[in-house]
Amino acid sequence: MNVNKEWITKVIEDIGEFGKTDKGITRLAYSDADVQASDYIINIMKELGMNIRRDEMGNIFGRLEGTDKDAKIVGTGSHLDTVPQGGKYDGVVGVVGSLAAIANLQQKGPLKHPLEMIIFMAEESSRFGFATMGSKAIAGKANLQAWAKAKDQTGLDFPTVLSSHGYDYTNIPKVARTEDEFKAFVEMHIEQGRVLEEDNLTIGVVEAIAAPTRLKVQVKGFADHSGATPMHQRKDALTSAAELILAIEDIAIQHSDEGTVGTVGLLKVEPGAMNVVPGLVTMWVDIRGVDYESISDTLAEFKDEVARIADERDILIVVDVLSSDRPVTLDDHVVDVVEHACRTAGVNYRRMNSGAGHDAMNMAAIAPTGMIFIPCKQGISHNPEESATVDDIYAGIQVLTETLYNLAK
Amino acid sequence: MNVNKEWITKVIEDIGEFGKTDKGITRLAYSDADVQASDYIINIMKELGMNIRRDEMGNIFGRLEGTDKDAKIVGTGSHLDTVPQGGKYDGVVGVVGSLAAIANLQQKGPLKHPLEMIIFMAEESSRFGFATMGSKAIAGKANLQAWAKAKDQTGLDFPTVLSSHGYDYTNIPKVARTEDEFKAFVEMHIEQGRVLEEDNLTIGVVEAIAAPTRLKVQVKGFADHSGATPMHQRKDALTSAAELILAIEDIAIQHSDEGTVGTVGLLKVEPGAMNVVPGLVTMWVDIRGVDYESISDTLAEFKDEVARIADERDILIVVDVLSSDRPVTLDDHVVDVVEHACRTAGVNYRRMNSGAGHDAMNMAAIAPTGMIFIPCKQGISHNPEESATVDDIYAGIQVLTETLYNLAK
Repeated sequence: MNVNKEWITKVIEDIGEFGKTDKGITRLAYSDADVQASDYIINIMKELGMNIRRDEMGNIFGRLEGTDKDAKIVGTGSHLDTVPQGGKYDGVVGVVGSLAAIANLQQKGPLKHPLEMIIFMAEESSRFGFATMGSKAIAGKANLQAWAKAKDQTGLDFPTVLSSHGYDYTNIPKVARTEDEFKAFVEMHIEQGRVLEEDNLTIGVVEAIAAPTRLKVQVKGFADHSGATPMHQRKDALTSAAELILAIEDIAIQHSDEGTVGTVGLLKVEPGAMNVVPGLVTMWVDIRGVDYESISDTLAEFKDEVARIADERDILIVVDVLSSDRPVTLDDHVVDVVEHACRTAGVNYRRMNSGAGHDAMNMAAIAPTGMIFIPCKQGISHNPEESATVDDIYAGIQVLTETLYNLAK
Repeated sequence: MNVNKEWITKVIEDIGEFGKTDKGITRLAYSDADVQASDYIINIMKELGMNIRRDEMGNIFGRLEGTDKDAKIVGTGSHLDTVPQGGKYDGVVGVVGSLAAIANLQQKGPLKHPLEMIIFMAEESSRFGFATMGSKAIAGKANLQAWAKAKDQTGLDFPTVLSSHGYDYTNIPKVARTEDEFKAFVEMHIEQGRVLEEDNLTIGVVEAIAAPTRLKVQVKGFADHSGATPMHQRKDALTSAAELILAIEDIAIQHSDEGTVGTVGLLKVEPGAMNVVPGLVTMWVDIRGVDYESISDTLAEFKDEVARIADERDILIVVDVLSSDRPVTLDDHVVDVVEHACRTAGVNYRRMNSGAGHDAMNMAAIAPTGMIFIPCKQGISHNPEESATVDDIYAGIQVLTETLYNLAK
């Protein structure tokens, strides 16, 4: 297999066909499109001589033995699932990069350490409301009680979906890997921000990963006829929700200097008819940053606003904190190896933080971990306009190859 | 058939089984549940000796001949479809009332005028975004171009749904009836407000019907990664939409004294994921009142706010006026006949306006029309808690019987 720019382009385009719609790519975790993309990559992994294994989450492992039977694994990989109406590069660049780097390493001859390529299932939270589920399971951080109740937008729950793929939910605890197994893990990914593009750089050497705090907020009003209910007699769940949306925006703007952001990305109105005052609004809030104190302050201030709005409008608002993860600092040594690889490959780079969460942040709990960022156009991600150049992807693959070589040799 | 309170209760409970869920009744227009409820009522209409006809909208007509072949029709009826998670009485009370009144009239012996009971299809706008579609078609007010494009929440368009019931969309113009045919039309309905309950009255003699102005508002932002996109770089469609929701609430409150209300009952967020800044929000606005100038002012002030928010947030907001109907004044003579019937029946009553729209407002274009309101508990409608007493329904039937008798004798 000759890893040139044509090959890279072809594989990325091929994967982009799975889940393609007229508004970008919708390849939700465990969907038919996700299965097809996985099968496509598994075929290439087999061509490269990897030994394939899937765990009870559906995570895919492709292993190449090293010369030392007792040596620890050097891992690399990313994910294939997308958000609804997503792009071609988020996750895919790391999967294709891992394939390419391993193909490159095979041409350098046998290495001491075994290599393991991992495709993580359900990195995006779009389907079940939980992000990086596959890597959380591998890191032994699966929240089994919460996952058991997680439903997708069609009402299917997670255990049922797993079961339809032949996996048993109760076996998820066995998916966990241990610190003894890994020497290192490295993930390549698009930046999903504008830092590299604005600095005209090719590679980001990631030092820390921001973590999300996620809330489910339910506003419980009363459904009334929209024509016959005077304004002063209403308990409109949506007008209260509108105040909450503006509150989280305002609070996040006040914490901008600390790198914290706040978003309502998903909101449902019930019963949802033009002539009915909304009786129930459910909305999901995503607060992120690399400064845990700033995230905590943002959450506390939002809860104060919830109390004020509930009181002023005499309406019930229930806040559930679904998750509150701490930002993750990556491994000093692996970060140094990545930086060294940038110099060896002759690409310009900078050290930086990741604003988005990644499977690497879970892998960091069981393996010394690093990340390699490449630029994406205008920082656009989770969008059909997501774009990365083959030159940048190629450069990232050179850095990943050199990094894995230094770790596994 | 003996129209007593037991019979009334049984028929209402029977209809309530069609579309029953654990959160009220969902019997959308043209759904299986709607067909089942229609079939149930048609059977009773046949037992009463009515000659049944359906037009190309699916509207149902049950006719009893009068003694004078040339006399105009006296009509009565209502609808069987519901909003999602609706109640047992909206529409149903008028259908059951029509059946009962006609059964009562049959015991009085033959009348001069033919009687026609009508079950109107698609009164609720919940399925296709257009209200009172069946009666609009009968009144020759079908907006065929707009209806052809109307889709339900599952993506099915209106002509396809009609076709699946054996009706041809292109035949809708033939559904229209004419002024020559009707002497009068009278609809009985729950009030869907609190006026009768607060005044401790049994019957509302309706003089005018408020009309809705309906808008589709699209906020076109840009979908971005929620973690990696700083607050100041966002074009968040949902935060702009939140300002619009609060604007329409505020403007409607300012026009409360004129009886005008404003509601956002339905809102969709795209792509709709916890970790994506919303790129597109589509929301539907319902403005209503009995004072057309006040409705127009409310709309104009809302459009001013749209322009201000679009400018301040540098975002595209598109407003489509889907419909803008004028309030309808009912027929003086028919209103007088209803009032007289209240006195004859010995029930306390008041003249009043209807805040909600009804099929009667379309029938008013081709027939001298009246309406009879009965109270509903706390004014609650379009909600599983919707409730009316059998005593009030029985009283309404006495008034409807007497009204139809006076008009048809």
